[in-house]
Amino acid sequence: MMQTPSEFRRLVREGGHTGPTAGICPGYAQANLVILPRELAYDFLLFAQRNPKSCPILEVSDTGSRYLNEIAPGADIAKDLPRYRVYEHGVMTGEYTDVSHLWRDDLVSFLIGCSFSFEGELMEADVSVRHIEEGRNVPMYITNIPCQPAGAFRGNMVVSMRPLPYDQIVKSVLVTGSMPRVHGAPVHIGDPTAIGIRDIHAPDFGDSVTIRSGEVPVFWPCGVTPQAVLMASKPAFAITHAPGHMLVTDVKNVNLKY
Amino acid sequence: MMQTPSEFRRLVREGGHTGPTAGICPGYAQANLVILPRELAYDFLLFAQRNPKSCPILEVSDTGSRYLNEIAPGADIAKDLPRYRVYEHGVMTGEYTDVSHLWRDDLVSFLIGCSFSFEGELMEADVSVRHIEEGRNVPMYITNIPCQPAGAFRGNMVVSMRPLPYDQIVKSVLVTGSMPRVHGAPVHIGDPTAIGIRDIHAPDFGDSVTIRSGEVPVFWPCGVTPQAVLMASKPAFAITHAPGHMLVTDVKNVNLKY
Repeated sequence: MMQTPSEFRRLVREGGHTGPTAGICPGYAQANLVILPRELAYDFLLFAQRNPKSCPILEVSDTGSRYLNEIAPGADIAKDLPRYRVYEHGVMTGEYTDVSHLWRDDLVSFLIGCSFSFEGELMEADVSVRHIEEGRNVPMYITNIPCQPAGAFRGNMVVSMRPLPYDQIVKSVLVTGSMPRVHGAPVHIGDPTAIGIRDIHAPDFGDSVTIRSGEVPVFWPCGVTPQAVLMASKPAFAITHAPGHMLVTDVKNVNLKY
Repeated sequence: MMQTPSEFRRLVREGGHTGPTAGICPGYAQANLVILPRELAYDFLLFAQRNPKSCPILEVSDTGSRYLNEIAPGADIAKDLPRYRVYEHGVMTGEYTDVSHLWRDDLVSFLIGCSFSFEGELMEADVSVRHIEEGRNVPMYITNIPCQPAGAFRGNMVVSMRPLPYDQIVKSVLVTGSMPRVHGAPVHIGDPTAIGIRDIHAPDFGDSVTIRSGEVPVFWPCGVTPQAVLMASKPAFAITHAPGHMLVTDVKNVNLKY
């Protein structure tokens, strides 16, 4: 029988899985994590409210609580992700498989929707996802599209790119457009220079992927945006998931449409 | 030529319109207003994040600012609504057509989407809206559906009801479901007792409307929810729009779908 998300989280909590979460519990949404002190939480929540496409929030914990009510009841935020990174004043000071010893009463956890969810739905709908075919990380680019600033947080949108043949573009817009809680529809289709990307083969994050003759680059708002914007402000203390090591939630991707 | 939203707001600012805004600038979204001190803003924003159907936020101002960047550039929040109410410790202490003399550097304005927008789209789609046909206020009911609490804010969802014949129900779900920024799809269709409403002809707010033979009551999350939840917490200071006297924004209802 397939492992359930809560079974997988228990395995992680007991130290039985410390690797990436790609491919775990297919069909269930995974979430990015940002943990901040309460004094920064308002500005971050406001940034998310103003920039929902790049920062779609699935749940925010109560201040000081390690538990979630909606997307993963019973989860322990400090233990149930396989790997965490701790940042102090914008510098990574440690990587851990458990951050319960660092927990404080003023911490707020933000769980942010992730493109894994819409990629699952794209593949279900027979739309090709190149970086998965090629076994690479998705290519990501810093654009010239400004985010709406909030308090100390400001910066440009980061996008992820998937090359598609003409006859899959409309379907990709419709499938992802129906999932606004995991970034939603593309922000741009076609000429990369129109959004300030000079070299499509030199992504700012992730890996370059093959663009075949006749294919068009399609760009989606990316969850790296809030992380990049946050880290640029050099908060005194923050915890995030380690890249690729996310929270596996109880929410089915298909239910993110409603 | 039809009056634009910015022309109407200028008229209001100059004292030339102090009445309700129903029917003003058809096709453009109107917004509910809640102004709170910064110390309550995080909990209120979190409440909205957790209860987006009853509290869909269109824009949040910067702390202390009377201006909006997105939905009504150039508007003065303290002057451009026809009528405001001031509450102290949960008690209404005044009604004004201009609140600029009460402005403080710690105030945050929340502009909240309103069912006027989806009613406009329903009528465009030939779906009948009974309370408008009958010249009454929409009937609203306190349900047994709990909101997700946030800090001091907790309470049950308030819904608005529109009776519809069977052959308009599906269309009404599709039209309003495409507009999540103004409450979105119905929360319930049919038997009022299933959501804790004992007497459909005795609404908790607004007016009773005729339900004809063969019609089914359809219930939508209502923007009165956040106001009721907020007022129950008796904040030391708050300003809201006076009922029916809203901000007319530059956002077309049709653009709330995207």
